[in-house]
Amino acid sequence: MQPSHDDAQLKTAIIENFGTPCLVIDLDIVERNISKAQAICDAAGVANRPHIKTHKSPILANRQIKAGAHGITCQKLGEAEVMADAGITDILIATNLLGAARSGRLAALQKRLPLKVCADNAISLAEYAKAATQAERVIDVLIEVDTGQQRAGVETPAEAFALAQIIKAEPMLNFAGLLYYPPLDGWPRTQVFHAELSAELAKIGMSAEIISTGGTPNLANIDKLKGSTEHRAGTYIFNDRMMIEAGMASLKDCGLHVYSSVVSRGGTDRGILDAGSKTLTSDTGGLEGFGHIIEHPTARISKFAEEHGFLDLSRCNSKPEVGDIVRVVPNHVCVAVNMVDQLVAVRGGEIVEIIPVAARGKLV
Amino acid sequence: MQPSHDDAQLKTAIIENFGTPCLVIDLDIVERNISKAQAICDAAGVANRPHIKTHKSPILANRQIKAGAHGITCQKLGEAEVMADAGITDILIATNLLGAARSGRLAALQKRLPLKVCADNAISLAEYAKAATQAERVIDVLIEVDTGQQRAGVETPAEAFALAQIIKAEPMLNFAGLLYYPPLDGWPRTQVFHAELSAELAKIGMSAEIISTGGTPNLANIDKLKGSTEHRAGTYIFNDRMMIEAGMASLKDCGLHVYSSVVSRGGTDRGILDAGSKTLTSDTGGLEGFGHIIEHPTARISKFAEEHGFLDLSRCNSKPEVGDIVRVVPNHVCVAVNMVDQLVAVRGGEIVEIIPVAARGKLV
Repeated sequence: MQPSHDDAQLKTAIIENFGTPCLVIDLDIVERNISKAQAICDAAGVANRPHIKTHKSPILANRQIKAGAHGITCQKLGEAEVMADAGITDILIATNLLGAARSGRLAALQKRLPLKVCADNAISLAEYAKAATQAERVIDVLIEVDTGQQRAGVETPAEAFALAQIIKAEPMLNFAGLLYYPPLDGWPRTQVFHAELSAELAKIGMSAEIISTGGTPNLANIDKLKGSTEHRAGTYIFNDRMMIEAGMASLKDCGLHVYSSVVSRGGTDRGILDAGSKTLTSDTGGLEGFGHIIEHPTARISKFAEEHGFLDLSRCNSKPEVGDIVRVVPNHVCVAVNMVDQLVAVRGGEIVEIIPVAARGKLV
Repeated sequence: MQPSHDDAQLKTAIIENFGTPCLVIDLDIVERNISKAQAICDAAGVANRPHIKTHKSPILANRQIKAGAHGITCQKLGEAEVMADAGITDILIATNLLGAARSGRLAALQKRLPLKVCADNAISLAEYAKAATQAERVIDVLIEVDTGQQRAGVETPAEAFALAQIIKAEPMLNFAGLLYYPPLDGWPRTQVFHAELSAELAKIGMSAEIISTGGTPNLANIDKLKGSTEHRAGTYIFNDRMMIEAGMASLKDCGLHVYSSVVSRGGTDRGILDAGSKTLTSDTGGLEGFGHIIEHPTARISKFAEEHGFLDLSRCNSKPEVGDIVRVVPNHVCVAVNMVDQLVAVRGGEIVEIIPVAARGKLV
């Protein structure tokens, strides 16, 4: 593909101002992605609670909220702290917190603002009650349910019911709802689970105010759980090769490119990018190769050293030369963003903004 | 394995002071590893130039120098900037720099101190000459040679010779030597390559002052290249499962553990750690499972979500419970360290120091 004049100018601006590798987002695409997901949620009558794990940026989280999202989802307390510092007040932390609970940080943040937290076990509930007591503020708890992903979450309505009873008995905990992450083909059985659990809860006067589902590919299923109140999706804001593979995006919907220089050409069929596993990460997402190169779609990023991406150019007619700058669509954009401290934002081929990945590296 | 009293106390101190996951290094082991590699280099009469990619910490780099290393190796200019800020003056950047050269940062650092850089192509050499001219200081260049790794480096003595001639003709470049990274079984052919190239260079009055080899597993081969002057190894400072697999370390030589909490137990044979691909990374190093759990050696970290490590406990007699803290030896320690902003250092079971990973995230 012959680069357009604009592409070449932007590449020069990126390498001269920032060097390579450099993570660049196109705000026109990002805003279109934000609007599209919001419209899907709106059409289904389901609130949008984007997961910030993909961008880890309060600036972008606030743009999602401005576009209609009613709150955000975080995976780590440290992410929630950064988002709270930026004025975001409706935060769900969608995981069992233990490290953050035991280090006192959960209590400290709960004192500042009312969080929504999740649990799939009684030990987490005990930690949350302790933190709420320390914070002198009742904490909202969702029960996490697994209907087939084999990730976190209780596997039976009876287990969920038992946790609901513990929450009911503990004055510092408030039962806020149920957290689902149905497998793509698991919505019917999620519905069965939910109906059974809701009936049990109703018998003791309990009901879930929030019924939350998740995942970007599941935006296609968003209206399939009767009673659901909100959806958590993350990757849609940028998209990546996994989302293309899942049928949720095309290349034109991929709003983040890793600009990388070809730094070596060893032999006819080999090349090396200055982006390796410390930039693109070793997440394959189950795909062939470690990224799609816009300028050389038949080139394959076949393996990594830490700072090098090794190119198999055997299928390329036109091969990149040392010094060429290429744009890589990552397999998994969430982990690539997590490697950097900032994103360079462009619009119409011009660099317009530097967006800090402020919640990067918040492991706890 | 029943934890000793000390282990339990340290775990409590880690989770209460920092939360989990948390990267913890044991300074007694780290110092032993530093001494051991230094002794190997000393015994071979080869200078030690550790690669800081593993720890990215000026504090630890300075300890390696204090123990006898004569300088350091970096992979990115941004790493060299951080190390220079900490007073380190003998720095080799072991890669073709393009992004950093074109953004002007190479020239700026070369103005501050005389760097050693590497090239395997004429375009990089032209960039180095430009940077040296800007910096008003001749730059030392090593020619990178590939004798079988299929990574960066010229593949024939003739190509290396051609680059040496370019360097000789360019007044702002100084030919400083040859950079090798022999495959484990490739030392004999590296010797042949080196002899042939040296003979050619001698004909035009050139000789390599620095003859550099690399790799922790290659510490076992260090005396096998006649004339070599220095060795670059990185991983030895902490070691990991890959180094155990390579026969270079035992579990007791692994100086870095990822302390992680069991946050969920779904079903008899499943468990979830609060360390996922954003902590341990998806680098397998060709090994089975994504880490070794000290307390449960038969448990298998079978896959990752971004913030969760999924445990297969089917082979465990004693299974961890929610709330248990376990210590994970990563498959590849260099990429795990690269995920965090600090390491917690312990000695004799006590927390003694916080070591910033100051050069983390320096992609350019």
